[in-house]
Amino acid sequence: MTEIADIEKKDLLYKGKAKEMFTTNDPDIMWVHYMDQVTAFNGKKKVQMQGKGQTNCEISSLIFTDLAKHGIENHFIKQLDTNNQLVKRVKIIPLETVVRNFASGSFEKRYGVKHLMKFEKPVTEFFYKSDELNDPFINDFDAEALKVATEDQMNRIREIALKVNDRLKEIFAEMAVDLVDFKVEFGTTSDGQLILADEISPDSCRLIDRKTKKSLDKDVFRKGLGALVPVYKELLGRLEKVEDVQ
Amino acid sequence: MTEIADIEKKDLLYKGKAKEMFTTNDPDIMWVHYMDQVTAFNGKKKVQMQGKGQTNCEISSLIFTDLAKHGIENHFIKQLDTNNQLVKRVKIIPLETVVRNFASGSFEKRYGVKHLMKFEKPVTEFFYKSDELNDPFINDFDAEALKVATEDQMNRIREIALKVNDRLKEIFAEMAVDLVDFKVEFGTTSDGQLILADEISPDSCRLIDRKTKKSLDKDVFRKGLGALVPVYKELLGRLEKVEDVQ
Repeated sequence: MTEIADIEKKDLLYKGKAKEMFTTNDPDIMWVHYMDQVTAFNGKKKVQMQGKGQTNCEISSLIFTDLAKHGIENHFIKQLDTNNQLVKRVKIIPLETVVRNFASGSFEKRYGVKHLMKFEKPVTEFFYKSDELNDPFINDFDAEALKVATEDQMNRIREIALKVNDRLKEIFAEMAVDLVDFKVEFGTTSDGQLILADEISPDSCRLIDRKTKKSLDKDVFRKGLGALVPVYKELLGRLEKVEDVQ
Repeated sequence: MTEIADIEKKDLLYKGKAKEMFTTNDPDIMWVHYMDQVTAFNGKKKVQMQGKGQTNCEISSLIFTDLAKHGIENHFIKQLDTNNQLVKRVKIIPLETVVRNFASGSFEKRYGVKHLMKFEKPVTEFFYKSDELNDPFINDFDAEALKVATEDQMNRIREIALKVNDRLKEIFAEMAVDLVDFKVEFGTTSDGQLILADEISPDSCRLIDRKTKKSLDKDVFRKGLGALVPVYKELLGRLEKVEDVQ
């Protein structure tokens, strides 16, 4: 493995909705650039926002560092500066894994249940990553038939995702915030290990302030509830004050 | 239990899209009347068709009798006449269980795969029975959270549904027909037993003639491919010729 100090950014490999991924001079390391861009509804709503990339980069770096300390291996290596990270290169499994503690978003709509109905235990869902198909909800049997993931991978993903949920709930509780739901992605490293990848940020979590009941996440943008970056900065400020998240 | 000969039809308990369910003088027995009606697209397309109720009643009676002989317990007791059956009264679990051998219908649409792509092994899906919500696709975790069914019930349902699939494939193979997919429902009897219920007919199966590649099921109606009852009668005629289905 190349020394971190010697890592150089090379070619743009992939441009997502909020991040650009570059190769580096180490085949097992990727350079992630968090863009000042926010999108919703599968990219139909898209706005440039100064400071958005930085807050997400910092929030996600803090959280991934914390998760690693709590035994949840992930792709994060190092935050380089405000908007850039180094991560382990993985082959992403094309499933979005959603963990829900309260009903919201597509769950609420699909089943017609009360907004923020609390679940007795967290529920997990998989969505098949495909912009073309609008990321359809998928079950294990369909995912296996379509060779999206193996049964073992899906069981392991669920197990890790629920551990992530346990730790995130602890962190957010210290910030007086309820974790409604979140989305994570997983990938396999060049030596075949399945690890947590992507990001964990207010772009990928639904978070509600316990006192004001206001959203502290991308729903502010989705629903047009006001300026997004101040909300993300407020969240980052609270996260930085959590004693054991450093 | 009341003697079958003494069963009397009482009150209409439930009118579905193709069947009416009546109570009887035995609290554990229901009287099912197969109507001469066919609907599709959650009832949006609806037509009266003479002879349709009879063919479905006869096909479903033959199949349920055969499944019982093959160790798959179900609600069917007796066919009374052309359009009427007696069945055990069950509390229906509000899940439609779909077993698929080839991609078609909502699977094909959801995942954008080739029509009639063959699966290496059958896939199972659950849909939450709710006309209001348009019977949404559901996974085990959501169904448990919504108290639609327990984990044990869902595992047992899948196990039975796959046994039904094995036997149906055998029957249809003898009729030179491919079983693309089918939908079944399950319920619990008054003594808590989980059994197969509802019907198995060309209304609830997708069937393709191996020679002509033509549909022998409700897709003829859904897609406006011609008269439906002659197709159902053709299927019944072939089923009656299968030696061990009597």
